[in-house]
Amino acid sequence: MAGQKPSIPKGTRDFSPVEMVKRNFIFDTIKAVFKQYGYLPIETPAMENLSSLLGKYGDEGDKLLFKILNSGDFLSNFTDKEKLKKIFSDFLNKYNTNKNKNIDKSLAFDKSIKYISGKNKLLSLYLESKKDTLIKKIDSKQDPVNYFIRYLSSNIINNKVESSDFTYDISEKGLRYDLTVPFARYVVQHLNDITFPFKRYQIQPVWRADRPQKGRYREFYQCDVDVIGSNSLLNEAELIQIIDKVFQKLNINTVIKLNNRKILLGIAEVIGAKDKFIDLTVALDKFDKIGKDGVKNELREIGFSNHQVEKVFEIINVFDKDNQQKIDFLKSMLNESDIGLKGTEEIETVLNYFDFLPLNTILELDLTLARGLNYYTGAIIEVKALDVEMGSICGGGRYDDLTGVFGLKDVSGVGVSFGADRIYDVMEQLQIFPEEIVSSTKVMFVNFGKKEEKYCLPLLQKLRDKGISAEMFPESAKMKKQMAYANNKNIPYVILVGENEMNKNLLSVKNMISGEQTEMSFDMLLQTLQNI
Amino acid sequence: MAGQKPSIPKGTRDFSPVEMVKRNFIFDTIKAVFKQYGYLPIETPAMENLSSLLGKYGDEGDKLLFKILNSGDFLSNFTDKEKLKKIFSDFLNKYNTNKNKNIDKSLAFDKSIKYISGKNKLLSLYLESKKDTLIKKIDSKQDPVNYFIRYLSSNIINNKVESSDFTYDISEKGLRYDLTVPFARYVVQHLNDITFPFKRYQIQPVWRADRPQKGRYREFYQCDVDVIGSNSLLNEAELIQIIDKVFQKLNINTVIKLNNRKILLGIAEVIGAKDKFIDLTVALDKFDKIGKDGVKNELREIGFSNHQVEKVFEIINVFDKDNQQKIDFLKSMLNESDIGLKGTEEIETVLNYFDFLPLNTILELDLTLARGLNYYTGAIIEVKALDVEMGSICGGGRYDDLTGVFGLKDVSGVGVSFGADRIYDVMEQLQIFPEEIVSSTKVMFVNFGKKEEKYCLPLLQKLRDKGISAEMFPESAKMKKQMAYANNKNIPYVILVGENEMNKNLLSVKNMISGEQTEMSFDMLLQTLQNI
Repeated sequence: MAGQKPSIPKGTRDFSPVEMVKRNFIFDTIKAVFKQYGYLPIETPAMENLSSLLGKYGDEGDKLLFKILNSGDFLSNFTDKEKLKKIFSDFLNKYNTNKNKNIDKSLAFDKSIKYISGKNKLLSLYLESKKDTLIKKIDSKQDPVNYFIRYLSSNIINNKVESSDFTYDISEKGLRYDLTVPFARYVVQHLNDITFPFKRYQIQPVWRADRPQKGRYREFYQCDVDVIGSNSLLNEAELIQIIDKVFQKLNINTVIKLNNRKILLGIAEVIGAKDKFIDLTVALDKFDKIGKDGVKNELREIGFSNHQVEKVFEIINVFDKDNQQKIDFLKSMLNESDIGLKGTEEIETVLNYFDFLPLNTILELDLTLARGLNYYTGAIIEVKALDVEMGSICGGGRYDDLTGVFGLKDVSGVGVSFGADRIYDVMEQLQIFPEEIVSSTKVMFVNFGKKEEKYCLPLLQKLRDKGISAEMFPESAKMKKQMAYANNKNIPYVILVGENEMNKNLLSVKNMISGEQTEMSFDMLLQTLQNI
Repeated sequence: MAGQKPSIPKGTRDFSPVEMVKRNFIFDTIKAVFKQYGYLPIETPAMENLSSLLGKYGDEGDKLLFKILNSGDFLSNFTDKEKLKKIFSDFLNKYNTNKNKNIDKSLAFDKSIKYISGKNKLLSLYLESKKDTLIKKIDSKQDPVNYFIRYLSSNIINNKVESSDFTYDISEKGLRYDLTVPFARYVVQHLNDITFPFKRYQIQPVWRADRPQKGRYREFYQCDVDVIGSNSLLNEAELIQIIDKVFQKLNINTVIKLNNRKILLGIAEVIGAKDKFIDLTVALDKFDKIGKDGVKNELREIGFSNHQVEKVFEIINVFDKDNQQKIDFLKSMLNESDIGLKGTEEIETVLNYFDFLPLNTILELDLTLARGLNYYTGAIIEVKALDVEMGSICGGGRYDDLTGVFGLKDVSGVGVSFGADRIYDVMEQLQIFPEEIVSSTKVMFVNFGKKEEKYCLPLLQKLRDKGISAEMFPESAKMKKQMAYANNKNIPYVILVGENEMNKNLLSVKNMISGEQTEMSFDMLLQTLQNI
C-alpha cells in the first residue's frame, strides 16, 4: 500500500470544506424556499429492494442500477454440491408428492420446479431445460440425484448463462437511482400516515452506473419537491414560484420553459399520428441540440409524412409570439383535439396566476419542450440558465399515475427536481457565490504557550458562546506556521496576546485582509465582530 | 404487485417529516457547535474501493461490508466456457514463453498464474491446486485446454468454493462502514491541499450488514469531528468542550467518561502482562455489562494469574475518589511504567484545562473505560446519558497512526463520533424535543374558490417574502377536509377569507390551538406571526 495513493471509485467525488460550504449554500437556499411554501422533508434509505427499482427506468436504467451483493456465501448457490443435492432432493420429494395426486407428470414436474425456484433459480432453469430426460430418469429410479449433479457440473461450464437470470440469487437490493420512485414507494407504504395533498421535499444523493464524464457523476444529489394527491393547477403555479424564488436567491438569471404533454398529444392527434406520440416527443426533445431541420429529418426517418412534419412545425413555429398569442393560436390549431384543448386550457390557467403574482424570471411557453420521461402527463417544466452554456438546471412536470406501479391507482402529482451539481457549476462559472459564505472560522487566537493559553481560552469561550466561530491554534508553533494556517483557512481576524497585551489587558487584533493590526479591549473586539 | 405493499430492505428506515424535523434539530445543533469551534465540513462518497475498506475493521467487519456488484456480466467469470478457454490459452502461452527463458517449470507455472490471476481469480486458484498434473499434461501435449475445461466443470461443482476468494471478481466497491477510514483515506489522497492541523467534521450515513435489531440499523448516520496533524492535548480538551456544549444545547444530562489507553498499557506493564494488553482492554470493556466479578473471571479464563487480576483491580478500584485523587493514586501505582505515567500526565493536562474552562457536564476519569477499537493510542472518551438506559451516545479518542494503512505514517489525530440515532431515542424517551420545531408551516389559507384565491395569493406571497412558511390549500375542497389537513400538519394559524372578509378588507384568523377566531387586518396578522 505504502507509496500508492488511495483513490475513490470512478465517477465519485470527495467534497472539501470550500466545496461543502458552497454546496450547502445551494442546499440551504433551496430548503429555505421549500419550507416557506409549506413543503416538508422526508428521507428514504439509500438501498431499495431491487423489486422496487427494476423495470421503472426502462432497460437502460435497469443496467445502470448499482446492485448490492447479498450477504453470506452467495456463490454457494452455484458451487456447493451438498446444498444443491439438498434442494434437488426437496424437488424430488415434491415431484413424487405431486405425482401421487394423480396429476399429469409434466404438470407435477412444473409445479415442483416452481416450488424450488425461490431457493435456487439456476437449478430450476436447468431442471426446466432438461425436463423430459429427468422425468424418465426419475421414474426409472436411475439415481437421479447423482445424475443431476453430474449433469449440472458439466452444464454449468458448457452453457453460457446470462447473469441477469440470477440477479436475485446474489443481489436483492440496489442503490436508489432517483428520488421519484422511492417517493412513490414511500407514499404507498405509508398511505395511512399521510394527509393529502402531501407536499414533500427530499434532498439526497442518487447513484447511477453511467459512464463517468465531465459533469456526469455516478453519485450526485437531487433536490426534489413534489405535491401528490391534488389535481389543482395552483400546484403548478406554486412550483414555478418556487423555481423563481430559488434562482432569484441564488442570483442566477434563468428562463423557465413551460409546456404540457396534452398539447403535444393534441398535435399528434390533429396530424393523425396519435400512435406515434412517443416518437414525436423523443424527436422534439432534441430540438435544442439538432435544431428545426434536424427534428424534421428525424421525424421523416421514423415514418412521419412530409405533410405531417410541416403541420407539426406550423403549430409549434410561434417562437416570436408572446405566451397569450401562442395560446390563442393553439386554441385554433388544436380545435379538433379535446386533449389538445385541455392541455392549452391547463397552461392558460397556470399562466394566468402570474397576472397577479409577479415573477422575477421569464416564463415562456415553449412548444418544443417535451422531456424524455414518459410518466409525465400534464405540465412539463424546464429551467435554463441565461448567462452560461449549461443543460437544464431544473425540471419536472405532472404525472397522473406514478404510484400505479406500487398498486395505488389514480393519484396525481406534480414536482420538479433541482440539479445541485449543475447549479454549482453555473455559480462557479459566473463566480456568483457570495464571498461571506467562504470563511467559517471568524477568529483565531495565536498560541504563544501555556500561560497565554490560560489567558486566552476563557476569552475564546466567550466568543463561541456569542455564536462567533473561533479557535486557538492548538500548539505554540512558529508564528509563520500559525499565520499560514489562518491564511489558508481564510480566517479574517487573528488575535495576538503576549506578555505585553496581558499586562495591559488588551488584545492585538490583526485584520488578515487589510493587514492592519490594532490593540483593543475584548468588548471592542466583540463589537467589531458582531458588526461584520 | 397490486395488493402487495412495497417495502424497504431489513434494517433500513424511511423518515417522515415529523422524524426529519427532529433529526435535523439534532444535526443542526451538532453542526452549529462544530462550526463554533472552527471545524469545517467534508463529505466522501458512499462507495469506497473495497481495497480501502477491507482489513480495516477486522474479519468480522469485513463480513459486515455491503459490497456492490461490478457492472456487466459478472457471472461469466464462472460460466462462460469461451472466456475461460481464452484466458487459459493466454496462460498456456505465458507458460511456454516463461519456460523458454530456461527457468524452472514450477517457477514458470507460478509466474504464469500470477499473470492471469487478475483476469480470473477462480481459474488461477484451480490452476494452482492442480499444478503438478497440469504441468505433466501440458508438457505431454495432451490437449490441456479440453482437459482443463472438463476438469474445471466437474470441480466447480464438486468443491465447495469460498465466495470470499472471488470477491474482487464480482465486486470492487463497498458502502462505507464508518467515517473514520474514509477520513484517513481523504487525508492521504488530498494531502497537498490540506493545511494541518486539519479540523473537519463529517455527518453522513454509514452501512453495516449487521443483524437488524431494536436500535441497531443497517443504515445509520454518524456525526464525526476530528482534528488530525496535532499532538496538542488542547484538542482533547476542546472535544470535551464540544461534547459538553452539544448535550447542553440538546438538554440531555450526561456524564463524560475519560481514560487513556497509555494508562491501561501501564497497568498491563506493572502487572507483568504487557503482551496481554489487548485481552485486558477487551475484558475491561465489558465492565459495564458483566461487572467486576465478571471481568475478573474473564481475565482468569484467558490466562491472567490471580495475583495479576487482584493487582488490576487494586489500581482501578478507585470509584469513590475524585479525578485528582485518582491521578495521584495512579502516579504512585504506575511508578514503574513510563508509558503509564505518560498517560496519567496526559489525562492530568486535559483535566487541568477545566479548572479555568468550566463544564456543564460531569467529567469523570473512569479507569474501566477501554473502548473496543484498537487504533486508539491515547485519550479515550465515552458519553452516557444520565436519565435513561442507553449505551454510549458519543465516543472517541486519540489515534496515533490512522493514516498509516494508506501509507502516511506518524500523523496523530483525535476525534469523537456522535450517535445521532441513540441521541434521538434518548430525546424521544425523555420527551425533550422543543415543541416549536415540530410545526413547519405557520399559516394556511383556506381555499374558497377562484375569486378568493386571487385575493389571498398575493397576501400569501407577502407572508412568504417575510420568511413565514405559509401555504394555501390547493383546491376549494370541503371545509372539513381543509381543516383536517391543517390539523394533521400541525399548522397553528388558519386564515379564512370569504365574501364578507374581502368586503371589509379583513382576515378571519383561527388559532388552531385555542380554537379562537379573530378578525384582523393583514398587518396585524403579520405582527402576530412575527411575535411568535
